[in-house]
Amino acid sequence: MGNDEAKRTAGYAAADRYVTSRMKVGMGTGSTAVWAIRRIGERLAAGEIAGVTGVATSSQSEIECQELGIPLRSMNDPEIGGRLDVTIDGADEIDPDRRLVKGGGGALLIEKIVAYASSRFVVVAEPSKLVDHLGMAFPVPLEVLPVARVPVMDALRRLGAEPVVRVAERKMGAVITDNGNILIDVRFLEPIDPVAMEASLSTIPGVLGNGLFTRVEPIVLIGHEDGSVAELGT
Amino acid sequence: MGNDEAKRTAGYAAADRYVTSRMKVGMGTGSTAVWAIRRIGERLAAGEIAGVTGVATSSQSEIECQELGIPLRSMNDPEIGGRLDVTIDGADEIDPDRRLVKGGGGALLIEKIVAYASSRFVVVAEPSKLVDHLGMAFPVPLEVLPVARVPVMDALRRLGAEPVVRVAERKMGAVITDNGNILIDVRFLEPIDPVAMEASLSTIPGVLGNGLFTRVEPIVLIGHEDGSVAELGT
Repeated sequence: MGNDEAKRTAGYAAADRYVTSRMKVGMGTGSTAVWAIRRIGERLAAGEIAGVTGVATSSQSEIECQELGIPLRSMNDPEIGGRLDVTIDGADEIDPDRRLVKGGGGALLIEKIVAYASSRFVVVAEPSKLVDHLGMAFPVPLEVLPVARVPVMDALRRLGAEPVVRVAERKMGAVITDNGNILIDVRFLEPIDPVAMEASLSTIPGVLGNGLFTRVEPIVLIGHEDGSVAELGT
Repeated sequence: MGNDEAKRTAGYAAADRYVTSRMKVGMGTGSTAVWAIRRIGERLAAGEIAGVTGVATSSQSEIECQELGIPLRSMNDPEIGGRLDVTIDGADEIDPDRRLVKGGGGALLIEKIVAYASSRFVVVAEPSKLVDHLGMAFPVPLEVLPVARVPVMDALRRLGAEPVVRVAERKMGAVITDNGNILIDVRFLEPIDPVAMEASLSTIPGVLGNGLFTRVEPIVLIGHEDGSVAELGT
């Protein structure tokens, strides 16, 4: 993983620049976001910041925070009140207007709930995630009710997409999400309008969430292997 | 229940008029749709029709069909292939353009998957379900991921709605759906555009399904206590 250093650089920069004491922080999922969590843990342990409360976006980020002693609450907890100061999370693709594809890690449903309820949304990534058009190289993941698999696949094909059920490793059959559902990865053969497509995918019955993030305006931190960080959207 | 006779009249008429041999039939939920299921069972037992296969929309309709010996399949079964010939279901409200509010019985998510995948959608109801504007007297139900309760309630209030978590009887706390989620009932204080609102509700992260049915063109059968049936939309 030659880009591990780039991922760590981005994650560290987000935790250093955008997390201060007493913030309520959405804790992202994936191999880049985990570096932000680790850096928040380091800064708390060093006494640089204090009183940070997290909301996990997946079983991965929950375990990571618990191992680091970062206190977690649910979005419904009165201490959180359904609103966060900042969420730091990765992305699978980022277009020139900072619209995103997320969900390679399978946590898109909770990631979107948390990101869309945050005053500031910071995306951390390495340069390979920057693309001209979303959903063509990396597919858009959907979380789908298992009983709706076939009608949802039909509806997606009518939208001109190529849907594939995400198959698990280390168990047989489909990947099952933290919420008990399946994932359908959707590749588009021609450039899409991401805003319209996010809405269209949302209205297919049985689609519980989709990995297009177009209705937030993230700050994007792109880490490089040389330790430099490019900041987009500020 | 003075309108039981009206409900039975509507349900029987749908089963008599719109179900023929070898059809794949979506089996609705509620106190009116159950009469259609019972009539289908009667017609099968009497040999009037044969080879009907059902897809249940809830644990209620599943049990009813199983007790009557109507064979059930899932939407994913190759025999069904994600498409049904007809679905017969009830509604909580029906407006003059035959747009619906459904989900009083808590089965809206599966009901919409099934209805939207049916060549013909037959709605059975009694006259009190006809309204001028949807969602003002009877609330629009949403199926919501339990961890998203507070941010979803916030988003709904920003849309001008009055959301209430549906509280269970015969267990403490919230009603839990057949899919393991909660229901939030949403009342609107002013007339809404049902088509736009169905889409808006769909795009709130954590909202898994909503009870506005505007993108199907149902045939509506209104039963009356005197045994007559008014048919709308044919």
